[in-house]
Amino acid sequence: MELKDISSPKDIKGASIQELENLAEEIRAVILRQVSEHGGHLSSSLGAVELAIALHYVYDTPNDILIWDVGHQAYAHKLLTGRYEKFSTMRQRGGISGFPKRSESVYDHFGAGHASTSTSAGLGFAIARDLAQKDNQVLAIIGDGSMTGGMVFEALNNSNQTKKNFTIILNDNKMSISPSVGAFSKYLSKLSVKHRHSLGEFSRFLRSIPKHLGNKFKGLIDNAKLAFENIMNPGQLFRDLSIRYFGPFDGHNLQELIEIFKEIKELPNVCLVHVLTQKGKGYDPAAIDPIKWHGSDPFHIDDGSVILEKPRPTLTSIFGKTLLTLAKQNKKIVGISAAMLDGCGLGILKEDPETADRIFDVGIAEEHAVTFAAGLACEGFTPIVAIYSTFLQRAYDQIIHDVALQNLPVVFILDRAGLVGSDGPTHHGALDLSYLRTIPNMVIMAPSDENEMRNMIYTATQYKNGPIALRYPRAVTWTNDIRTEFFQLPIGKFRTVSKGSKVLLIGVGFMLAKCLDVAGILVKKSIKPTIIDARFVKPLDTESYKELFREHSVVATVEDNSITGGFGSAIAEILAEMKNPPRLIRIGLPDAFVGQGEIEELREELGISGKGISDKILAAMK
Amino acid sequence: MELKDISSPKDIKGASIQELENLAEEIRAVILRQVSEHGGHLSSSLGAVELAIALHYVYDTPNDILIWDVGHQAYAHKLLTGRYEKFSTMRQRGGISGFPKRSESVYDHFGAGHASTSTSAGLGFAIARDLAQKDNQVLAIIGDGSMTGGMVFEALNNSNQTKKNFTIILNDNKMSISPSVGAFSKYLSKLSVKHRHSLGEFSRFLRSIPKHLGNKFKGLIDNAKLAFENIMNPGQLFRDLSIRYFGPFDGHNLQELIEIFKEIKELPNVCLVHVLTQKGKGYDPAAIDPIKWHGSDPFHIDDGSVILEKPRPTLTSIFGKTLLTLAKQNKKIVGISAAMLDGCGLGILKEDPETADRIFDVGIAEEHAVTFAAGLACEGFTPIVAIYSTFLQRAYDQIIHDVALQNLPVVFILDRAGLVGSDGPTHHGALDLSYLRTIPNMVIMAPSDENEMRNMIYTATQYKNGPIALRYPRAVTWTNDIRTEFFQLPIGKFRTVSKGSKVLLIGVGFMLAKCLDVAGILVKKSIKPTIIDARFVKPLDTESYKELFREHSVVATVEDNSITGGFGSAIAEILAEMKNPPRLIRIGLPDAFVGQGEIEELREELGISGKGISDKILAAMK
Repeated sequence: MELKDISSPKDIKGASIQELENLAEEIRAVILRQVSEHGGHLSSSLGAVELAIALHYVYDTPNDILIWDVGHQAYAHKLLTGRYEKFSTMRQRGGISGFPKRSESVYDHFGAGHASTSTSAGLGFAIARDLAQKDNQVLAIIGDGSMTGGMVFEALNNSNQTKKNFTIILNDNKMSISPSVGAFSKYLSKLSVKHRHSLGEFSRFLRSIPKHLGNKFKGLIDNAKLAFENIMNPGQLFRDLSIRYFGPFDGHNLQELIEIFKEIKELPNVCLVHVLTQKGKGYDPAAIDPIKWHGSDPFHIDDGSVILEKPRPTLTSIFGKTLLTLAKQNKKIVGISAAMLDGCGLGILKEDPETADRIFDVGIAEEHAVTFAAGLACEGFTPIVAIYSTFLQRAYDQIIHDVALQNLPVVFILDRAGLVGSDGPTHHGALDLSYLRTIPNMVIMAPSDENEMRNMIYTATQYKNGPIALRYPRAVTWTNDIRTEFFQLPIGKFRTVSKGSKVLLIGVGFMLAKCLDVAGILVKKSIKPTIIDARFVKPLDTESYKELFREHSVVATVEDNSITGGFGSAIAEILAEMKNPPRLIRIGLPDAFVGQGEIEELREELGISGKGISDKILAAMK
Repeated sequence: MELKDISSPKDIKGASIQELENLAEEIRAVILRQVSEHGGHLSSSLGAVELAIALHYVYDTPNDILIWDVGHQAYAHKLLTGRYEKFSTMRQRGGISGFPKRSESVYDHFGAGHASTSTSAGLGFAIARDLAQKDNQVLAIIGDGSMTGGMVFEALNNSNQTKKNFTIILNDNKMSISPSVGAFSKYLSKLSVKHRHSLGEFSRFLRSIPKHLGNKFKGLIDNAKLAFENIMNPGQLFRDLSIRYFGPFDGHNLQELIEIFKEIKELPNVCLVHVLTQKGKGYDPAAIDPIKWHGSDPFHIDDGSVILEKPRPTLTSIFGKTLLTLAKQNKKIVGISAAMLDGCGLGILKEDPETADRIFDVGIAEEHAVTFAAGLACEGFTPIVAIYSTFLQRAYDQIIHDVALQNLPVVFILDRAGLVGSDGPTHHGALDLSYLRTIPNMVIMAPSDENEMRNMIYTATQYKNGPIALRYPRAVTWTNDIRTEFFQLPIGKFRTVSKGSKVLLIGVGFMLAKCLDVAGILVKKSIKPTIIDARFVKPLDTESYKELFREHSVVATVEDNSITGGFGSAIAEILAEMKNPPRLIRIGLPDAFVGQGEIEELREELGISGKGISDKILAAMK
């Protein structure tokens, strides 16, 4: 049985364990080759190979419903469900997604890029099944630390709404992107030490107690039996939530997994199956350092070395280094992240003894991260909440209700703002300027280069009047010329890059580069535009902007945020109240979900390139 | 000791239990009088009187920090902390807040109107205390079902970040606004049946076992002891999360509470104290029907009858009745709410045998509610998620990532949109048009009267192309003339109310009434404006709007949403791309948090009245 011959899970139904094990090896090799050539989520997917095989072997998919949490565990699932041929296109423009995607396959019942959603969605499928009086199975497969996300608890609390089958598989690899944190993770570790004492042995002991003693304490003995059973069978925490717990099982033992799932399948209840897996299983570099290999750029399989070194430092690393410097000077600075200390650049502060005790990884728990920061701010600390743009959406209410309403000086650092590339629509940070701009008291900054960024981080830590946010893309610096001094920026003021006439170009953050491209094109048409670096998205220096507007006939705003509600919208609000305003062209991401692909490739397609923008400006000038 | 003599908690320190009990009685009477005269949150606050007294008696507030979850449990806390004199101004314009408020008192360390925030915030205070090497106590008081909110679990999971004291008090009254739901609530009920067997008795039993038997099974006996202890001391679920559990205790027994808190105070760990209270305690009507008395309008104390009957049906009841009709015809309709079935009007569907099994109260769990709905929508159902505007903020990411990205037909019903009155800034639904408008694929409607509303609910249940939202204020109908037929509205199209010239008034939802007021004023100045009922906030029929804009010189948008990013902003986006656009006046809520007060009173103050709006229009015309 070879992978190329598997067009659907039906093709593995008759296979022997040995054949399935061989298949697992082949799947690992295919995943490894694909990610080594094109990048992707390596370690999680390598860990879930046997799980995917066993599930498709035992269950009648797609009639039975598998919902993969976080999504990046699902490469083996994709390979088993008719996507072997297209697998090499994964995460590329026009190719298949790196995550489950409903429009891509009938086997992908629910898309997932953000974590902790599978149990809620699965319960929706289970209740739909109940109401429609069908009898298919529903399974949610939680992995990579998604269990710390609060909405999983909300869903577990409700899971007994279904009286039929609902199976939650906890793919426990002790990791999110970073190692899992917190009490729940410790609890799972305790469960993982199997208790081998048998209840039978204890019963024999009880039976050996002289009868007259035994009768006297019968009630007590019954209680002791029950209690003892709890020790014998761990997982009481789940049983306390009326969920039947099974496990832990070896998630790489196909025989064991298949036997278990066959048993579970017959049970009518809400069941949680605890499966232990190893993130990066089967590829030594990834197994040894699963954090580094969570998401990977192309690499040489033999030694794991990256094929193309980044030419310059990432903005993420600039943030980390800058904050480390500031945090050493200012003991009130506290760093907080949600399961991605390294991804957000806080790793080096966690490693430095001077700052380590002020860096908190709260796990996948964005809501808690923000309100925890609010508490710290109340007591005079300067909390820096570093979360990817797309994930901070999770804490929108906490930013409003716990931070902004109380006008607390919490600093928000949004990495991965704008287009992120091959992770696609679940991960693009396309909305942060829009959603943060709705919030009263919020200051929003976007740096146009690495030195602006340093100054903005400094400005944010100095700002005491309320919440302040800083957003920047997944990118490298423009230069290696990183300065060492800090300047505090005046809140709300833009920076004039060059003065011209007729056309006014306003760049937001790193999109200033596009404005420079546009200027290069316009100058050939004898138009020398004025170029502005917006620096701030909120508040805006309305009067100074109005002055500029009166001096120009066309204004173009250029941002890598949705044109709905973003910076361009803020400028439209100002223009609409002017007499004889100039024409406005809002350049940005569309009011639609943008697909995956190389960032520049996507920008071209969306008309956010020097040429695309200048064409629009020239058309408006006619 | 009388309440009027208590200017701070120091004044109760020397009191006897009897004096404190008398004080509790007086506090109850004062709360009852206040709410009966001015309305407010009665049942929760009556339930937490002894708790507030005991805490302030034992702890050194405000040096020790009390953080009240949801906030409406805190009336007794307010009375004990120097706000007796101002208590009669509570929830009124210029008066004290109905919730804890940092700017109001040094005893209010953290504001709260939304639920489930206290543990996260408290952990922030505890870590701040640790870092500053102080030794004050930090307590989070969770009540009213807030424990089902996922962020509490996120915080519990992290609570052991502090090595010093952090005390979580679970004020368990078995209720949120509705009775608590789910497995966790059942678990708490089980704990509430006290286990009275003593560990000593079991030890005597074990000692009585003949020595030769005992030695042989020593390991087993030790395990049995441990297990037995767990039965003796319930709360294993919390201990599994490394939290020490104590309880349950009688939350109305001052003697017991004081003794417990004195002990807990000396413990260095994260402790959870489980306290049983009765919502509505001390006032029979509220104790018997705590849902009805959760939030109350003014009433006669003697029989509990409401002083001023509402002249016409509420919009909430119109929604409930309309959906009941539709759900009887369409078996695919499923209703979902988060701890407020009655508050959202779904109560009557839960009571009707034809629809009861399709109505789900998921508890305070907005995130789960939305993704659960997404799962149902995947399977062809039409889920109706009914959540107050301000609380739906909690599920912003789920609406984007789980619903809109997959373009699933989930219906969102946002009650309490716009200003809500005396609940103030934590509860105003001031941002929904702004935050929903940022989301691709989303359709947003706002009805201008009860019959429009019925048609929009119908339209929403018929719409299959993606998510659709409907928002309306806390208000009564305009008339008693509720029609019975349904019309499906064309998506995105506005309705022309009357044609005029020069001035174009566009009303969003019930704010159309203000446009009619404005027209009445302008007509006296010989201006007959065109009046439009926007009906839709997204998408907009841009071409038809542009046509209208070309025919007028001033456009005024009138909405009860923030002017930042709301409907006016959408219109500004259109205007900014026109040649020679008319002047735009955006009327709406300011980009600031609006205080408490009567809705019309607040609107006057904000210039959202017929006169306020017409003044601005006339000024713009000059």
